[in-house]
Amino acid sequence: MEIQGHNIIGFGTSSEGTVAIQAINPANGNPIGPLFYNATKEELASAIDLADTAFDIYRKKSGKEKASFLRNIASEIENLGDALIDRYTSETGLPAGRANGERGRTCGQLRLFASLLEDGSWVNAKIDPALPDRSPLPRVDLRSMERPIGPVAVFGASNFPLAFSVAGGDTASALAAGCPVIFKAHPAHLGTSELVGKAIQKAAKESGMPEGVFSMIYADPAISQALVTDPSIKAVGFTGSYKVGKLLFDLAAQRPEPIPVYSEMGSTNPVFVLPKTLSEKGEVIAENYINSVTMGVGQFCTNPGIMLIQKNEKFIDILSRKAKEATGGDMLTPGIKDAYLSGVENAKKYTKVIAIGKKSEGITGVEPTILHADYQTFKDNPHLDEEVFGPTSLVVEGNSKEEYLEIARNLSGHLTATVHGSEEELLEYSELLEILEKKVGRLVINGFPTGVEVCHAMVHGGPFPATTDSRSTSVGTGAITRFTRPVCYQSYPQSLLPDELKDSNPLGLMRLVDGKYTDQ
Amino acid sequence: MEIQGHNIIGFGTSSEGTVAIQAINPANGNPIGPLFYNATKEELASAIDLADTAFDIYRKKSGKEKASFLRNIASEIENLGDALIDRYTSETGLPAGRANGERGRTCGQLRLFASLLEDGSWVNAKIDPALPDRSPLPRVDLRSMERPIGPVAVFGASNFPLAFSVAGGDTASALAAGCPVIFKAHPAHLGTSELVGKAIQKAAKESGMPEGVFSMIYADPAISQALVTDPSIKAVGFTGSYKVGKLLFDLAAQRPEPIPVYSEMGSTNPVFVLPKTLSEKGEVIAENYINSVTMGVGQFCTNPGIMLIQKNEKFIDILSRKAKEATGGDMLTPGIKDAYLSGVENAKKYTKVIAIGKKSEGITGVEPTILHADYQTFKDNPHLDEEVFGPTSLVVEGNSKEEYLEIARNLSGHLTATVHGSEEELLEYSELLEILEKKVGRLVINGFPTGVEVCHAMVHGGPFPATTDSRSTSVGTGAITRFTRPVCYQSYPQSLLPDELKDSNPLGLMRLVDGKYTDQ
Repeated sequence: MEIQGHNIIGFGTSSEGTVAIQAINPANGNPIGPLFYNATKEELASAIDLADTAFDIYRKKSGKEKASFLRNIASEIENLGDALIDRYTSETGLPAGRANGERGRTCGQLRLFASLLEDGSWVNAKIDPALPDRSPLPRVDLRSMERPIGPVAVFGASNFPLAFSVAGGDTASALAAGCPVIFKAHPAHLGTSELVGKAIQKAAKESGMPEGVFSMIYADPAISQALVTDPSIKAVGFTGSYKVGKLLFDLAAQRPEPIPVYSEMGSTNPVFVLPKTLSEKGEVIAENYINSVTMGVGQFCTNPGIMLIQKNEKFIDILSRKAKEATGGDMLTPGIKDAYLSGVENAKKYTKVIAIGKKSEGITGVEPTILHADYQTFKDNPHLDEEVFGPTSLVVEGNSKEEYLEIARNLSGHLTATVHGSEEELLEYSELLEILEKKVGRLVINGFPTGVEVCHAMVHGGPFPATTDSRSTSVGTGAITRFTRPVCYQSYPQSLLPDELKDSNPLGLMRLVDGKYTDQ
Repeated sequence: MEIQGHNIIGFGTSSEGTVAIQAINPANGNPIGPLFYNATKEELASAIDLADTAFDIYRKKSGKEKASFLRNIASEIENLGDALIDRYTSETGLPAGRANGERGRTCGQLRLFASLLEDGSWVNAKIDPALPDRSPLPRVDLRSMERPIGPVAVFGASNFPLAFSVAGGDTASALAAGCPVIFKAHPAHLGTSELVGKAIQKAAKESGMPEGVFSMIYADPAISQALVTDPSIKAVGFTGSYKVGKLLFDLAAQRPEPIPVYSEMGSTNPVFVLPKTLSEKGEVIAENYINSVTMGVGQFCTNPGIMLIQKNEKFIDILSRKAKEATGGDMLTPGIKDAYLSGVENAKKYTKVIAIGKKSEGITGVEPTILHADYQTFKDNPHLDEEVFGPTSLVVEGNSKEEYLEIARNLSGHLTATVHGSEEELLEYSELLEILEKKVGRLVINGFPTGVEVCHAMVHGGPFPATTDSRSTSVGTGAITRFTRPVCYQSYPQSLLPDELKDSNPLGLMRLVDGKYTDQ
């Protein structure tokens, strides 16, 4: 399939704009064709009109119909074959193995949402039947379920060109919910975006979905803002920097009709290693920590950006040795590389260097950097808690359990927190776990936060500033209710009720009937 | 119990302020003792500190312990006996029958949340067990459930001095979720608030709950704003006017850490009567409509503020006759009366009067007013869609089905929409129902929206401007998740997991295990 550089508007393509951007190979700095034309106001308006019209058809599609659509998207992405992998690697500097793995994850994610829709119980159907003889007043028949919220704007992330991008978790969950998506492509992987966007477009056509259920635009900041503030858009999904994520949140809150914004803005994912465990398992913990820090050139939202230990010189020595052996890699874009280098330079003003690893060869190549601060320095410089995107991490050394707990209490919101310890030592530090529970979306024991499983129980979210809405997850099936709201049907005749709420339960859902769960 | 006019701070009372307010009997305009002292900054800080500390204890209480607390609150409210009913009626102008009914509803609501906690399945427990042999990568053990968000600020409504006030739905659902509550009392029923606040305080003590799980303050706007913007407060519940509800939303969105605000700001609750049904049942529909409009002197969020019909002179005549017979009542406060009168005066500039009912005798007495506009007038004056709080409603007459659908399409967000029609006629107007589903939280067939059942399936919410967060309900058990967020536990030893997530399922919850619902 030839890559054209056109916006995908409903079932067509369009490139009326005059400003074009281009993909860059981060390994050698060379541009990769073609030119990609930013959407005009008119192209945006056309995508929004189509989404608005599509919503009235798409929201009536059954779970099975939407599931078939999602499965077709996965198949069409797989049908892109090596062309997708080649484009992905040349645009991102990431290796083919990663591209293949991420494609598998992306298609698996689409199919997991498909199976959720086929099962159907996610709609949270509740039925309180009429009680005509109740005294003092009869009860009317009341039934409720989750319904789609409306067209959704999704902004792709740089760091997962497939799994958090065009057909990633935000798009998959919004489409699963019954919401049309207008996707704003990330400039760090323009061709990959077009390939995947066209796969969705093709799947929409062959699945009999309405035109406008999906559009994809390239956009400058003004068009991006126009998208978020358009009255037809009812929610926003975003993964990326704090700066942009918070900007979108503020824009949406200031609309005449405020709408929910799910900005996942990353975090430093503190890792606490309890002292006895650190003494006993320093070698293997150091090894796994460095692997986690350098995985994907440190470009993961769940990168362990801080490790908190109690004074242990031996461990610092082990770490120093391991870190020197570690190799960096080519970062996704020159801009991301520059931000990484200046972030590390800034952190160095307040910290010491434990070790610097090896630099990779590409134009955007960087080396891993492991830094060190004592407890007091960390406490006096709260900004050290902020994310530096890339293969770096800060080891903070405290002197006592109390200092340890105080560090935890002073943490801001993060996606994850990790604690390493034996069961006995964890029980001794149960207060630490309780403090951390208030700070994060996911608590990890004896592991590392990188590697976010796509499943039902995953929570990829957390208190601000990790996200703008801690009540949600952007990974896993729980993500679907970000794009729904409950609707109650009072005294509806059976013939007019959605299948999900009919007495006969034709879809066989698990439902809450008069306060009891039943699939009858 | 003597009413003192003191703020309730944790287990104590306090009145350090110098500015006092007083309750007014709306029937005769006479002040009722004592003086109520607005909270000072220091008193607010003390309530917040206590709530913060209480959260760490209260969030660990089991469902059964919280349930017992809620049941004790209900009992203590009942123990207030006639003193509560007497104070309620003298402060609000509402009759004793209403006070008794609302007390029953309030206590029933507390006990419904208690039974939800005793059942326990509301926490949405999900377990994805480890798959150590999965290829290419093993899966770690992941479990998640809803956990409380933190201390919550609740603002009482004027129009339900018990059910949407101190121990009303917002307080009950926040306490059920595991969140301490700081309640800001409404000046329209100061003594009632103190009585109920002390009942909660007493119940907290006797249930062994931590001091600070509940505090109640009287507050001027500056203290109210300080409450909403305090970093310890993690969510806000509000029922009242658009002006104040939106102000709190904006304040919370502009905090360094934005927090969710659940402002329920009322609506006009459009009622559509389909033409054949209007011809056949005009008499009974007119009767029930007037009853719904004048119920509680029209001071319900679900008051039917607009009725939409297709041209029918006979019905207008019936309505005119019924409306003239209807009696108003004493409104809750002189301010609410003034707002009602000026709202009606303003609406009259654009509409005709169908009928004016009888005025009641009290100082705040008003008469019901039924207005009329043709379709074009309604379309040209979109503000006629806005709520006038009190016993008034606007009948809009259109000429065709298409005009009818256009009215529906142009509606803003409302709590409810109602359609009257036979099953056959409803099927003919299925497009109308589909449009309305996008506009409201609850769809009512052949009824009236007043009378909001407290149950599992209720949705008392809806798109902006009905509320600031359409993803929620402020009535019914679904309200509990407004004050929670999901937390995921990865690779936790069984001993450290909450009971809700242990393999043995000691609480017997319905859980999603590996994607399947089971109570095993």
